[in-house]
Amino acid sequence: MSKTFTAQNPATAQAVGQEIIEWDQAQVLNAIKAADAVKAQLAQSDPSKRAALLNAIADSIEAQKENLAQMAHQETALPMPRVTGEVMRTVIQIRAFATLVKKGGHLLPIIDLADPDFQPVARPDLRKTQQPLGVVAVFAASNFPLAFSVAGGDTASALAAGCPVVVKAHPSHPNTSQLVYEAVISAIQSQGLSKDLFAIVQGINPQITHWLAQAPEITAIGFTGSGLVGKLLIKLSQERAVPIPVYAEMGSLNPVFFTPTALSEKADELAKAAMDSALLGSGQFCTKPGIIIVPADSNGDKFIAQVEEYVAAQKVGPLLNKGIASRFSDSTGKLAKSAGLKVISGVNNADGFGVTPTIFVVDWADVKNHDDLLEEHFGPTSVIIRAPFDQFLTVAKAMAGQLTAALHAGATENVSELVNQLTQLAGRVIWNGFPTAVSVTAAQNHGGQWPASSTHTTSVGLDAIYRFVRPVVYQNFPDNQLPAQLQNANPYGIERVVNGERGVKAI
Amino acid sequence: MSKTFTAQNPATAQAVGQEIIEWDQAQVLNAIKAADAVKAQLAQSDPSKRAALLNAIADSIEAQKENLAQMAHQETALPMPRVTGEVMRTVIQIRAFATLVKKGGHLLPIIDLADPDFQPVARPDLRKTQQPLGVVAVFAASNFPLAFSVAGGDTASALAAGCPVVVKAHPSHPNTSQLVYEAVISAIQSQGLSKDLFAIVQGINPQITHWLAQAPEITAIGFTGSGLVGKLLIKLSQERAVPIPVYAEMGSLNPVFFTPTALSEKADELAKAAMDSALLGSGQFCTKPGIIIVPADSNGDKFIAQVEEYVAAQKVGPLLNKGIASRFSDSTGKLAKSAGLKVISGVNNADGFGVTPTIFVVDWADVKNHDDLLEEHFGPTSVIIRAPFDQFLTVAKAMAGQLTAALHAGATENVSELVNQLTQLAGRVIWNGFPTAVSVTAAQNHGGQWPASSTHTTSVGLDAIYRFVRPVVYQNFPDNQLPAQLQNANPYGIERVVNGERGVKAI
Repeated sequence: MSKTFTAQNPATAQAVGQEIIEWDQAQVLNAIKAADAVKAQLAQSDPSKRAALLNAIADSIEAQKENLAQMAHQETALPMPRVTGEVMRTVIQIRAFATLVKKGGHLLPIIDLADPDFQPVARPDLRKTQQPLGVVAVFAASNFPLAFSVAGGDTASALAAGCPVVVKAHPSHPNTSQLVYEAVISAIQSQGLSKDLFAIVQGINPQITHWLAQAPEITAIGFTGSGLVGKLLIKLSQERAVPIPVYAEMGSLNPVFFTPTALSEKADELAKAAMDSALLGSGQFCTKPGIIIVPADSNGDKFIAQVEEYVAAQKVGPLLNKGIASRFSDSTGKLAKSAGLKVISGVNNADGFGVTPTIFVVDWADVKNHDDLLEEHFGPTSVIIRAPFDQFLTVAKAMAGQLTAALHAGATENVSELVNQLTQLAGRVIWNGFPTAVSVTAAQNHGGQWPASSTHTTSVGLDAIYRFVRPVVYQNFPDNQLPAQLQNANPYGIERVVNGERGVKAI
Repeated sequence: MSKTFTAQNPATAQAVGQEIIEWDQAQVLNAIKAADAVKAQLAQSDPSKRAALLNAIADSIEAQKENLAQMAHQETALPMPRVTGEVMRTVIQIRAFATLVKKGGHLLPIIDLADPDFQPVARPDLRKTQQPLGVVAVFAASNFPLAFSVAGGDTASALAAGCPVVVKAHPSHPNTSQLVYEAVISAIQSQGLSKDLFAIVQGINPQITHWLAQAPEITAIGFTGSGLVGKLLIKLSQERAVPIPVYAEMGSLNPVFFTPTALSEKADELAKAAMDSALLGSGQFCTKPGIIIVPADSNGDKFIAQVEEYVAAQKVGPLLNKGIASRFSDSTGKLAKSAGLKVISGVNNADGFGVTPTIFVVDWADVKNHDDLLEEHFGPTSVIIRAPFDQFLTVAKAMAGQLTAALHAGATENVSELVNQLTQLAGRVIWNGFPTAVSVTAAQNHGGQWPASSTHTTSVGLDAIYRFVRPVVYQNFPDNQLPAQLQNANPYGIERVVNGERGVKAI
């Protein structure tokens, strides 16, 4: 008999949805093999067909908007406006990739025509384009049941790149996952393509991670989650006969620095805004400001006093699952007992997997006594560090890699050295703002430095697609044997770089 | 007293050049720290200054052309025209990066202006550009004493990206390395920059590899050499507190397939051309055709007969060093004793590190009996596989990843399935040609699939620069606090993508 598991509503700790059947090894490997067997259907689809597929997927998900939001709300206890917005983010980001793909933005053709006078030796005809890697394994995140889950950013960018996808569904929202899966499959079939191009694997068995990461047909991994699992995936990849890229986004502290100038006029307002960002979504964002650095002066003290007053009245929604809630209570409980730490508590949420928002305040000189202060604690907590302003650079230099770093300063303040250090630290640097909210756009970068992410690539925004392609150059091919995007006539009518000139002209 | 070592002239096995002092750990670590301390000089140089530096380096090397070629000739026994050409390739590829950098091609600015109506939520001002990684360690190759050595492709692309470089010089050509080092340093100083931006480490101590790969200031590794050392570097990187990208190009078999149609009219001519490619540079190219697949029919037999006749008269220059020569003789000697292999020998070169060109012929059905046939054997050898034409696809599918794969076929022959398989296998696919000779140009791709290379990136051509940069996005920054390439006025006058439109206009 098959093993099963059931999701729980974090607001009630009661079962929600259907009993979910746990996948076994043979099922997982068969799904991967089946995806590999049909990969040419996607790899060889022309830009307009692939864009049509992506748009069909977006439409199919949008058509299920209410159902999806309802189910995600029950499985995550995230508020309805949040999950409804997240359905739309999911849909919009798939459409953004459709728009990119339709213009051939995934193909990047670079053509250097044969040149007998090229130095130091004659050049053959060289035509480079990007090709999809093959089947991609995506590990869904708990905290974005839609936008970083079954049909989230990793899946959208992999499909857009032309790669079949096998998603490890997150066991905290298996019913939402199943609904999204069905929406995607219905769209794939509406386009006359094989449903084997996409699969989800359900289960709580940790071996599933091994099966996926070690299957020879898997060519890349997209992951959002803990450093522990991210590092395991990298290790598993390195042990393969053919190692593969692991795009792991593993959490981040997202330091926010406030100069005395920034606080001098609006310490109160900024303190509230910082706490709103830290407690948003019950602090369950990879972009949560987990470290806030204020000057050890009267401005900083004013900020902290306001935090104390404001947080005392804050209550947040329950956490995503029992494990997250108990790890949160354990780690904040342990920290709260440390010597020299000031603890600011909010209102306890006694329902389901509810917890108490807990903010810590510590002097920079004491941070060394609390090793785990500079680690990510998932949930409604943040650490405020009081540091002399002239030590801000030292604080920044002591930090490990981050997804984001933010600085509040006066517009004409000379903070170039600190800004420079923050760009060394993080993939996104924010001026007078907070790290939560991540636009899905061409200029976005969500990925940074180790240990926040395993590579320098982005998992959000259009450039995410380039994680799942690889360059191939065709040398001296007859026109009829070339992929269409490289043929003289430019049958797709897409932008290409020919002998250094960008344009859509035929050759 | 310091340890020393001496280079040997492969043509005579006699010492050449000066006694070279072996670097110790403190020297290596100091050079890395010194490079890190001045990295801002390069990272913050504007496009025209960085291009000027690259051009100065190219000029300085070109000014030493005769000296360098003479010394490289003595240390490698490669013919004078080859090493003279290689000096020019080295110079030309540095200038190509200068041209790219001058246009700002390393910066890739993508700007999405704030948009309150952006969906699903308002978009802040997001401005992305590429930033250099930091100090790069380059491991020089033995077989390109200039173009893949001290100031070769990896160094040129890393400097162009804005990264200081510490090169592990190859102990087979330490005097050439020293001359190139001096030329580079003189150019750096002529531009008013610190000579600490560039260093070479000399030595034969295998610990040097560990010191370089594990130094915390090293942010990326460029490597060309054996799979053994490449895999060691990847392992050392994974063991670091902060793992770093290892761009390792580790050799390749570069299969060349001939269809019956291709051979039907010119088997003789193609057999000679294939052997010329295999024996070029004494077979010491990573792009040497190490596997040649001919049909098991009369066309294939004619090809083999011609190989036999042609190779019998071929003598090649000595190999690069004693180790390479003895490994070549050992492995070909061992293979020659295998059952069922036909051995075709050329003329022995009895001088110095000379060897005998040795070509093997084997039926596809027997390849499984000789595991090491499908491994790279550096030097003047190649394996000709006789396979029924209808099994070519099977042969291709049995191969590991390659830098290149070539197919000789009729222009209208239906070989799309085989071509498709070759693009899965290799980073460069060649029609009716041979893999040796690699143009340094925008469309080039030199890198492929594991185990030929560790990543999908290229180590030759302009795109090599993007291995050494990482994206950083600036959110809502005041104009005066942004890097120049992202400021409204576009002070560098470079191409940028603003709200999806490419151009040089100011905002």
